Amino acid sequence: MAKNAIVGQSGGPTSVINSSLAGVYQGSVSRGADNVFGMVNGIQGLLNNRIVNLSDYLISNLEIELLKRTPSAYLGSCRYKLPHFKDDISVYEKIFKILKELEIEYFFYIGGNDSMDTICKLSDYAKEIKSDIKFMGVPKTIDNDLMVTDHTPGYGSAAKYIGVVMKEIVRDATVYDTPYVTVVEIMGRNSGWLTAATSLSKSDDCEGVDMICLPEVPFESDKFLVKTERLLKEKKDIVIAVSEGLKLTDGRYVCELSDDARFTDAFGHKNLTGTARYLSNQVMKKIGIKSRSIELSTLQRCAGHLTSRTDITEAYQVGGAAAKAAFEGHSGEMVALKRLSNDPYQCTTQTHDIHKVANFEKKIPLEWLNSDCTDVTPVFHQYLRPLIQAELTPIFINGLPQHIYLKNTD
Amino acid sequence: MAKNAIVGQSGGPTSVINSSLAGVYQGSVSRGADNVFGMVNGIQGLLNNRIVNLSDYLISNLEIELLKRTPSAYLGSCRYKLPHFKDDISVYEKIFKILKELEIEYFFYIGGNDSMDTICKLSDYAKEIKSDIKFMGVPKTIDNDLMVTDHTPGYGSAAKYIGVVMKEIVRDATVYDTPYVTVVEIMGRNSGWLTAATSLSKSDDCEGVDMICLPEVPFESDKFLVKTERLLKEKKDIVIAVSEGLKLTDGRYVCELSDDARFTDAFGHKNLTGTARYLSNQVMKKIGIKSRSIELSTLQRCAGHLTSRTDITEAYQVGGAAAKAAFEGHSGEMVALKRLSNDPYQCTTQTHDIHKVANFEKKIPLEWLNSDCTDVTPVFHQYLRPLIQAELTPIFINGLPQHIYLKNTD
Repeated sequence: MAKNAIVGQSGGPTSVINSSLAGVYQGSVSRGADNVFGMVNGIQGLLNNRIVNLSDYLISNLEIELLKRTPSAYLGSCRYKLPHFKDDISVYEKIFKILKELEIEYFFYIGGNDSMDTICKLSDYAKEIKSDIKFMGVPKTIDNDLMVTDHTPGYGSAAKYIGVVMKEIVRDATVYDTPYVTVVEIMGRNSGWLTAATSLSKSDDCEGVDMICLPEVPFESDKFLVKTERLLKEKKDIVIAVSEGLKLTDGRYVCELSDDARFTDAFGHKNLTGTARYLSNQVMKKIGIKSRSIELSTLQRCAGHLTSRTDITEAYQVGGAAAKAAFEGHSGEMVALKRLSNDPYQCTTQTHDIHKVANFEKKIPLEWLNSDCTDVTPVFHQYLRPLIQAELTPIFINGLPQHIYLKNTD
Repeated sequence: MAKNAIVGQSGGPTSVINSSLAGVYQGSVSRGADNVFGMVNGIQGLLNNRIVNLSDYLISNLEIELLKRTPSAYLGSCRYKLPHFKDDISVYEKIFKILKELEIEYFFYIGGNDSMDTICKLSDYAKEIKSDIKFMGVPKTIDNDLMVTDHTPGYGSAAKYIGVVMKEIVRDATVYDTPYVTVVEIMGRNSGWLTAATSLSKSDDCEGVDMICLPEVPFESDKFLVKTERLLKEKKDIVIAVSEGLKLTDGRYVCELSDDARFTDAFGHKNLTGTARYLSNQVMKKIGIKSRSIELSTLQRCAGHLTSRTDITEAYQVGGAAAKAAFEGHSGEMVALKRLSNDPYQCTTQTHDIHKVANFEKKIPLEWLNSDCTDVTPVFHQYLRPLIQAELTPIFINGLPQHIYLKNTD
């Protein structure tokens, strides 16, 4: 019987999820996997038998190198929520039948909270039916909201991108000699790790952002406008960073106050957008100062042209560590990053029981914020700065970065 | 009497306008200027005596190098429209009085159409009053809409940025296994040069954009929706690039159909935004397919972290050529780029009578578009491709690009 592995990617894209895929692939091959299969569009693709043999595609080291430098999910992604097996066993029976046909011994899933929920449920079911298949979770999310890991692969690159473009936006925003308020909207549904990264822009060569509004702190319109007016007395151009997930004290999202249509995905998440636009309009109406809003949008999660080499390397390492753990017999666990020291920065990998990860969210400690919760303290920078160090330049061909992509497999 | 030069920057920021400033500065210094002054916030700052001596700030070659790699306008910008001297001579008298006090012999203005209008009016007035001051225009605009020059400095970098992020957006947009329409809004009020650059994304490693809508082509909603539906039959994820300046057949902007507030600047330009959002909503309402909109926003004009080295070099060259021409006695002219050949790419500088530039707009030739005007032909790529070649990496310090900026001079 063959010793096969299978790997899938799930949840929102990042710049480095493919580096983890490369880590899982090479880690499995070097440990003697006969085949490493890829689920196309995650568990949903697996259920529809959409499977590729990765060795047909990742032929030379050049493809591996391109994979590491290609943003988004090479294998495609999904937002499929697995029911509990006590509620619907048929899905599980189908999945394990497919895995048996493919002679899978190792199952890897790279993703965020929802993906770890999938690993949790599959490994619980495997235990229930006494299956020997090993299930390992590989962390990935720009949101940095996973428990037990010091930080998540994907966060460092997104934070670096946000720091860089905020410096550029500040340069752009301060170019005219007229009072102006720029409100920049950053991703982060419930945690402010990404919005807080805008504080990187403050340095000896940049005025930086003037106010940061995180979803951890209930948003009060009056305080926001009072602080904006006060800032405008000190300098003519104000740049404010707000999280897309800002919530009012009554629990509603700020963006619900605007007129935008909203949608709900399979996990019940609201499709948040319009927070910055709403607040920018408020500034114009209530303070009477010109204002514009900028949404960093998907660029912050898929900017493969501007990644942290530290992040890319760690993403590869957690993939490799997952392969190692699975081949050594671990299952129902997620690989986590454990920081050994800030300066010099040292970090290693561990594995943790997946039950301690799935469906929890890690937020910014409030003691890392200043007194009125509109800025971060140096502790946050000691935490973040090592994660954005060094660059991995794309392979530019004829003026553009070269990528690798899976052509239509249907 | 001292032989002094003065230089100002005007109009919207670009990634390379500071490289032109470096070119003017070094070109003037090397030709024996006693002082090179900078107007802070352009002609408006000059009128308020907001002037710096650049040699106090650009002390070593390192500052020059940082200047070349810092986006936006180092000296700040303005959108001041000079009245004709026959309508209001007092402004002219004030300007020439200030220039006399500063012992200015050479006056440089780096900018787009509106800035060339300023050079045109000042040089006309100088001729009228028999002033010896030489006035030279240095072209700059991401929009590439200036006459007589093959292309404008700033366009190559913006086009490269747009090509790169469109490849990344396509990777991001195609990650799920569900039909999806992504509409991306690109700058360009009246000309589609930037929106057309999204076509760079189509290559052997990327599916590219599926439809391009340029302001040169009157927009018809029905045709747009029919084409989108047809494309959705061929593939599940569609990426569409639209110009912010799309106009209906009756001359109204498409974004006027949405509910956004609009503003008008001193030049009577409408503040366009919301085209992609409106069209994305139309796709959801009329076709019933999930859709999102992305505005590249100011990032496309100030992304100093991703520039074309060709563009940065040419921006420096036009600055230097302006200094050379002025010191040789030219006035009332703009430096233009003249392409000698596509492959190998060769380009030189010329000067042109400013009256042939100011207040004209260069649009994409319609014969460079395909039959239904939703894509470009290879001729456009032969034109564009040389302009995006090679990269100028920022000087990264502690994880972020180092910039240079003029601290508050008030």
